[in-house]
Amino acid sequence: MTRLVLAAGTTETAAIDGVSAAGANDDLLVHTPSADAEILEYGHPVRAPVTPVSPSGCPTPAVVTRAVREQIPLPVTVVDAGLSEPTAAGTVTVGATPGRDIREDEPVPTAYGAWEAARQFGRALDDDLVLAETIPGGTTTALGVLTALGETDATGVSSSLRSNPLDLKQRVVEEGLAASDLAPGACDGQPKRAVRRMGDPTGSVLAGLTVGALETETPVTLAGGTQLLAVAALVRHAGGAGRLSLATTSFIDADPNVDLDAAAERFALDVMVTDPGFDDSHVAFEGYLAGEAKEGVGMGGALALADAAGVPMADVRDGIVDVYERLSV
Amino acid sequence: MTRLVLAAGTTETAAIDGVSAAGANDDLLVHTPSADAEILEYGHPVRAPVTPVSPSGCPTPAVVTRAVREQIPLPVTVVDAGLSEPTAAGTVTVGATPGRDIREDEPVPTAYGAWEAARQFGRALDDDLVLAETIPGGTTTALGVLTALGETDATGVSSSLRSNPLDLKQRVVEEGLAASDLAPGACDGQPKRAVRRMGDPTGSVLAGLTVGALETETPVTLAGGTQLLAVAALVRHAGGAGRLSLATTSFIDADPNVDLDAAAERFALDVMVTDPGFDDSHVAFEGYLAGEAKEGVGMGGALALADAAGVPMADVRDGIVDVYERLSV
Repeated sequence: MTRLVLAAGTTETAAIDGVSAAGANDDLLVHTPSADAEILEYGHPVRAPVTPVSPSGCPTPAVVTRAVREQIPLPVTVVDAGLSEPTAAGTVTVGATPGRDIREDEPVPTAYGAWEAARQFGRALDDDLVLAETIPGGTTTALGVLTALGETDATGVSSSLRSNPLDLKQRVVEEGLAASDLAPGACDGQPKRAVRRMGDPTGSVLAGLTVGALETETPVTLAGGTQLLAVAALVRHAGGAGRLSLATTSFIDADPNVDLDAAAERFALDVMVTDPGFDDSHVAFEGYLAGEAKEGVGMGGALALADAAGVPMADVRDGIVDVYERLSV
Repeated sequence: MTRLVLAAGTTETAAIDGVSAAGANDDLLVHTPSADAEILEYGHPVRAPVTPVSPSGCPTPAVVTRAVREQIPLPVTVVDAGLSEPTAAGTVTVGATPGRDIREDEPVPTAYGAWEAARQFGRALDDDLVLAETIPGGTTTALGVLTALGETDATGVSSSLRSNPLDLKQRVVEEGLAASDLAPGACDGQPKRAVRRMGDPTGSVLAGLTVGALETETPVTLAGGTQLLAVAALVRHAGGAGRLSLATTSFIDADPNVDLDAAAERFALDVMVTDPGFDDSHVAFEGYLAGEAKEGVGMGGALALADAAGVPMADVRDGIVDVYERLSV
């Protein structure tokens, strides 16, 4: 059996103006991971007050992953990787707390403990694992982690915005490094330290899960974009060995800020790219075509699983429209 | 879609010598609800150190419900109704804390808050709900609740032991009433008070969920034995109106301490009894034939769902043996 494990968390880094599109406005951003987990589990928000959309109205990629779950069996486990708002989805506790702004000296004080608890959890699971994230601001913290590890040559980071605010992210990371008194690459071989000083709690949880699963020879697919590349970097810097896959979307593959081939070689990843074939036939797809969202909530992994199960992509698109329209009621 | 919602909790009442068979010994009892939730979700314990068995070795009814889940789609939500040990199953938080001994004056201090949070949760869910419990000592606290409500004429309580220690339970309840300065029936029409003073946290969560679901006309099946009859009593004393079903096992129906017909009439319940057809062909069934366990973790509800889906009971039995043998490795 294949199981999707979603690390759902928050970082105050997302509140920096212009960093994230994972919410219609800053007040709603904090609800996005809780709402994503609910959409995945129930098909609609339950406790969360909102369906996450970008400022322009692009729906959360949770809609895509949910649509796949309505077509193939795909058990889901949500890990609380620092949620700051309640969720009606069941969550597993590993001791993570909401992340602070990476411009502070220690944005993830729970990084070590959550990593180890997630590692034990990963060791105990015997399903094939597809690991995913939902955390607004996550590409900025991914850049923080990659910079601290000295891996920015391997990959840049993507964005949920049409126009990637790379200069802003770079500035935020530089301020974070200064606050943490770190030079780029200072955390080479010290992945937990990289997360604690420059990352977010989902990085800690997903890297710990991966390391634990690899130790017990459980197959792991990292399902996502550059945030999951940062997880791969953390795993390799932790000495995590063994085969590791990355499943992502064609939107990430097409992103000029990402060189999937180079990252795959650097982190020894088998990369799968799935194109959902979005076109302008429905409003649910328009934001993606314009370069928004791109990935998240395991979208690329879910699409790959649907494809592997023989579900035609046209059926997946119909399912996405169906979930979207139920959400828009 | 039908969803099983499991309220998993603890009460220190279970530590009273002779009250519960929901664990091989007292030290292991506290892990039973956490392990049951894991077996339901993963098919085996993950964080819990043990597979729950009775002192004689009868496996937890979680095995039965898991076996059904492996044959029909049945999404599960676990609500933390006062767990005292970690679980790797995702749990929804409603503010419940572990229950204390009902011989104290206020064994469930979180009864009001958890009831209301569960009610809001029940209002927000739109799947058909099958509600279940796992809590060692639960029939003793059920007797406490029924006594406080003045409903002991409607039903007695069952037991997970072969020989129901009714005298002991009665004594415990009398001590509890004295500690709470309550006469039998003193909480008539005050169900939250009945739970707070004489119940356990699963009663509060399940009654709240049911009331919320009934308010929004969501179909509810109470899946269990006399603990779920106590929940029905709480719901009716809260003014919860509308159709309500109880799905239970033939082992409860055969229990001379339970008069399902009388309880059904008193609490306006549609009762479904399912006989899994256990025989002496496998060790997994022997404890049930000898009168142990009888119900729990939604067993009767799961059997009814399998039956309704057209799964032959022989296939369910094969599945139970399969889950059991994987657990026994």
